[in-house]
Amino acid sequence: MRALHFDGTTASLIDAAEPQRADGDAVIDVTLAGVCNTDLELTKGYMGFTGILGHELVGVVADGPAEWRGRRVVAEINFACGGCEWCARGLGRHCPTRRVMGILRADGAFAEQVAVPVANLHAVPDGVADEAAVFVEPLAAAFEILEQVRVEPGQSCIVLGDGKLGLLAAQVLHAAGADVLAVGKHAGKLAHLARRGVRTVRLDEWVRERAALVVEATGSAAGFEMAVAATEPRGTLVLKSTVAHGAPLNLAPLVIDEITVVGSRCGPFAPALAALASGAVDVGALISARRRLRDGVAAVQQAAQPGVIKVLLEP
Amino acid sequence: MRALHFDGTTASLIDAAEPQRADGDAVIDVTLAGVCNTDLELTKGYMGFTGILGHELVGVVADGPAEWRGRRVVAEINFACGGCEWCARGLGRHCPTRRVMGILRADGAFAEQVAVPVANLHAVPDGVADEAAVFVEPLAAAFEILEQVRVEPGQSCIVLGDGKLGLLAAQVLHAAGADVLAVGKHAGKLAHLARRGVRTVRLDEWVRERAALVVEATGSAAGFEMAVAATEPRGTLVLKSTVAHGAPLNLAPLVIDEITVVGSRCGPFAPALAALASGAVDVGALISARRRLRDGVAAVQQAAQPGVIKVLLEP
Repeated sequence: MRALHFDGTTASLIDAAEPQRADGDAVIDVTLAGVCNTDLELTKGYMGFTGILGHELVGVVADGPAEWRGRRVVAEINFACGGCEWCARGLGRHCPTRRVMGILRADGAFAEQVAVPVANLHAVPDGVADEAAVFVEPLAAAFEILEQVRVEPGQSCIVLGDGKLGLLAAQVLHAAGADVLAVGKHAGKLAHLARRGVRTVRLDEWVRERAALVVEATGSAAGFEMAVAATEPRGTLVLKSTVAHGAPLNLAPLVIDEITVVGSRCGPFAPALAALASGAVDVGALISARRRLRDGVAAVQQAAQPGVIKVLLEP
Repeated sequence: MRALHFDGTTASLIDAAEPQRADGDAVIDVTLAGVCNTDLELTKGYMGFTGILGHELVGVVADGPAEWRGRRVVAEINFACGGCEWCARGLGRHCPTRRVMGILRADGAFAEQVAVPVANLHAVPDGVADEAAVFVEPLAAAFEILEQVRVEPGQSCIVLGDGKLGLLAAQVLHAAGADVLAVGKHAGKLAHLARRGVRTVRLDEWVRERAALVVEATGSAAGFEMAVAATEPRGTLVLKSTVAHGAPLNLAPLVIDEITVVGSRCGPFAPALAALASGAVDVGALISARRRLRDGVAAVQQAAQPGVIKVLLEP
């Protein structure tokens, strides 16, 4: 089958063997897959990954238990062991022996087919189109904020970064009743949020007020110190970016202002699917391009261009 | 009066004017003052402070309201405005216009006398000796951990660093029922904790297990990444060190393991005084030297030597 593979140096299209279905797995025919910033990082060496890329998908179960075959599904990306103390606590996303689809010791969804544990499947409600369902994984990562931090109605909140995750986090916090100010560099991206009723400002016009809750989704090392400066004393900074590798950082303000930094990664799929079904979050405007998998290398490069939001791949 | 003054470059003994008592202030005759790592940092330029150093003291009220005159007191170090929203919320320690004794726009306690707001005074119980009461300020900083983080009885907890704050934090957490492992470089310092029933290990013999609660009190930039590595996924890292200025740091593990970092500074005096009165925390063994203020310059240098814990100054 056709697949977009990273060999540790180069991403290229290969003819891969079809995935083997192990016990407890399902094989999914991929309908659509989304390119994520993490994919771009992986192709720069992040996590030392080699294999088929891709961890955002919607598809149809081709092989697996009878009750799942033919159903339209999305799939959680952390493949947990199911038997350790973390899994017993419901924290399979932190299972120490987990594999992660397209990120850690598991092939991903930039392919015609992908194998995932049946336990990771979620059926897509009829009212949610494929073009929306493919956003469930990053939207769940935005909902993770609500799982980790108490958000009061009307609470002022600053979201830094107008990339995919920033745009989703701002919508999720807005839908949760927070008074969100989204700060970004791209007028076009911010316009999507403004149409949803979110207050927005361009970084170069921002007066740098502070808030008790700040979400750092800039994807840049400089974003962290900007986010710290935007967080009120005793406030909470939710850290979403993973790219601040080895940058010189001054942590003294965290101590002086007693700021709490909450590292935040993957999140729950159920509320993300519900928000897509209800229309509480809109993702349609976030699709910049829809490309064929055979053009996958160019599509990943396109996803890295300024102004581009989400690039979708279809086998 | 005699005072230890820092002019932005050099710490030296000066003959200073006696403090003027403003409205709402008391003037304290200093009985004992303690040298803190922050004093050492200040003499390297931290906070850009100039003035009389010192923020840990016990003394007797020489001038002030009648009900306070002649009483033995300790004093909170943040001089808040009392009128802003932060003060109204009981967070005067974060008042944006605060002065801080011996740290920020307020003369300190390495002097014969110091002026502090009456609102900052706490009477010292009769059963608490001056040599214990002088530890109230750093002990309160250790109690701040309990104010910010929920500590369950029996919860495993790692305290990194066997400096003054680490030794106090380990005792406070131990007294709160946590299962504390104190990690440090100095066998002599760790022995104080072992005598109090705290488990201890030298850094070079530590097997690097992880815990759900980690306190970073190493005072070194390298301590932060060690503390992150010692924190379990979804665990909490209490950050006490303020010296990690501009060091290259990798924050990706915070996101991947969804670690919460809680910046922690000054704390509540009341529980610290109560713990000294009850004997729940012992500070007597932490006194390395007691010097005259006239030897203050040498005393501050002595406090920076390896193996030295607390150096006290008496006018």
